Amino acid sequence: MSNTDWPDGFIAVDWGTTNRRAYRLGPDGAVIDTFEDELGVTSVPTGGFPEAVAAITVRLGDYPMLLAGMVGSNRGWKEVPYITCPAGTADLAAQLAWTEWGRTAIVPGLALVDEKTGDVMRGEEVQLVGLVALDPDTANATVCHPGTHTKWARMEGGRVAQFRTAMTGELFALLREHSVLSNLLQRPVEPDTSFLAGVEATYAGAQLTSELFSIRARVLLSLMDEDAAASYASGLLIGADMRSGMAIAGEDEVVVLGRPSLTRLYAAAVAHCGKPCREIDGAGAFVAGMRAIKEAIA
Amino acid sequence: MSNTDWPDGFIAVDWGTTNRRAYRLGPDGAVIDTFEDELGVTSVPTGGFPEAVAAITVRLGDYPMLLAGMVGSNRGWKEVPYITCPAGTADLAAQLAWTEWGRTAIVPGLALVDEKTGDVMRGEEVQLVGLVALDPDTANATVCHPGTHTKWARMEGGRVAQFRTAMTGELFALLREHSVLSNLLQRPVEPDTSFLAGVEATYAGAQLTSELFSIRARVLLSLMDEDAAASYASGLLIGADMRSGMAIAGEDEVVVLGRPSLTRLYAAAVAHCGKPCREIDGAGAFVAGMRAIKEAIA
Repeated sequence: MSNTDWPDGFIAVDWGTTNRRAYRLGPDGAVIDTFEDELGVTSVPTGGFPEAVAAITVRLGDYPMLLAGMVGSNRGWKEVPYITCPAGTADLAAQLAWTEWGRTAIVPGLALVDEKTGDVMRGEEVQLVGLVALDPDTANATVCHPGTHTKWARMEGGRVAQFRTAMTGELFALLREHSVLSNLLQRPVEPDTSFLAGVEATYAGAQLTSELFSIRARVLLSLMDEDAAASYASGLLIGADMRSGMAIAGEDEVVVLGRPSLTRLYAAAVAHCGKPCREIDGAGAFVAGMRAIKEAIA
Repeated sequence: MSNTDWPDGFIAVDWGTTNRRAYRLGPDGAVIDTFEDELGVTSVPTGGFPEAVAAITVRLGDYPMLLAGMVGSNRGWKEVPYITCPAGTADLAAQLAWTEWGRTAIVPGLALVDEKTGDVMRGEEVQLVGLVALDPDTANATVCHPGTHTKWARMEGGRVAQFRTAMTGELFALLREHSVLSNLLQRPVEPDTSFLAGVEATYAGAQLTSELFSIRARVLLSLMDEDAAASYASGLLIGADMRSGMAIAGEDEVVVLGRPSLTRLYAAAVAHCGKPCREIDGAGAFVAGMRAIKEAIA
């Protein structure tokens, strides 16, 4: 039996910038226990990762562990080099960064370099390969993973062939917390007619930074109801974001993968722009991705 | 002699959100004295405007006063209704909001309402009519006023016929102070090749929120020098902003009006995109505008 048979199962951790979610998987791959906390990598003090990792085993038991996300960045436990696209499950498994052979490894992120730009992801790659493991029909598909930094990925042959990031969620948070629009953006965002009007405007090419200012102007001039501002602003950002996605999309459907609170907004936007679309919960895809990577370890 | 002959001259105040600049103009309209401080409208406590105005007369003498900018907003001394475009010097003079007849008045801002959007300005209108007073050739021109909220105005017959705002300066400040790009954006922005590459990308239609994220990715992947990031980001925002401007521009030259530290960036961007362009200092245009408005008081 090799070091990585893990007969008692293992722990999979999605460790992002501001929070982390850990799952204990049994020998058959089913989730036995899970927890989520706000100990994202920016909350871990320098040199504090061994202790932060040990705290996971206190909660879930002493099992081997696969970690993904910003924990593998220069702000995390250990900087793990990116793998260049195209890349899939086998590539991720082959280039795990082991901290203890057979016990603890960090999944590498992906890099995209083409004639136009460069891009990076850390964490979403696990959900992307997990999606293919859950549903082989997505081996060739366009996948949208909404978030602080929304990712649009083109899957080909089950691997991530290309992707583009847009800093949609982060910009919305900046506008809501710190900008002249702040007091107008406090309401919850709903995929309503205001939201879809915003999507339509920027998806059709309206200039985002002017459209954003116009929210304040329209409210001042009573051309827009103050209650509509947050949804409209979110729609503007997502409509712009979709231009990045559609630039790499194929003819087929768009799979919107992630937290249901965000996927429902993106799914509404994608459908409104006339693309077939379905939503998949990212948590399930993450677990499936870690299971697939574990199985692919040589 | 009417109440507004002002034989001893008057004081003109450009009173914005975060700072104010006051000028004492002599009987012939020449600037005799001036000061600038950080007592913008958001620094004046509720009910504190009479005192803040009195402090100006302590500095510059007890003269009649014309105030412009956010001092006329709902965050300022008194909310003055916007005048709808097209509007010029005579309209502004006719709709001054007097607090003491013949002694103190606030210049109204401008509103734009068309089938596409709504927009507002407060303060820039004085510089725009001042520009025409200084140079009658600009009576029909495209004017760019860069700033926290950059304004692009179409002048026709000496009046502001149309305008569009982009929240360029504010977004750059948000990104520099609070975003994932923060540490990359601390260097001064120069109109160099990185800046022009940014302008070119978004002016040609590249999606702003993806291009912004790509700065971080490119630096991580060593595809961009960290020192180039601030200029490139500024170029991206200004290139996007220019799309709003060019949507209302005529065939003629673009006059870039404002603070020289900002006009030089915009002038470089406009020229790079192939439009003839010149820079005018906004302070001189503001004084000329206030002089023209004073002379137009009935």
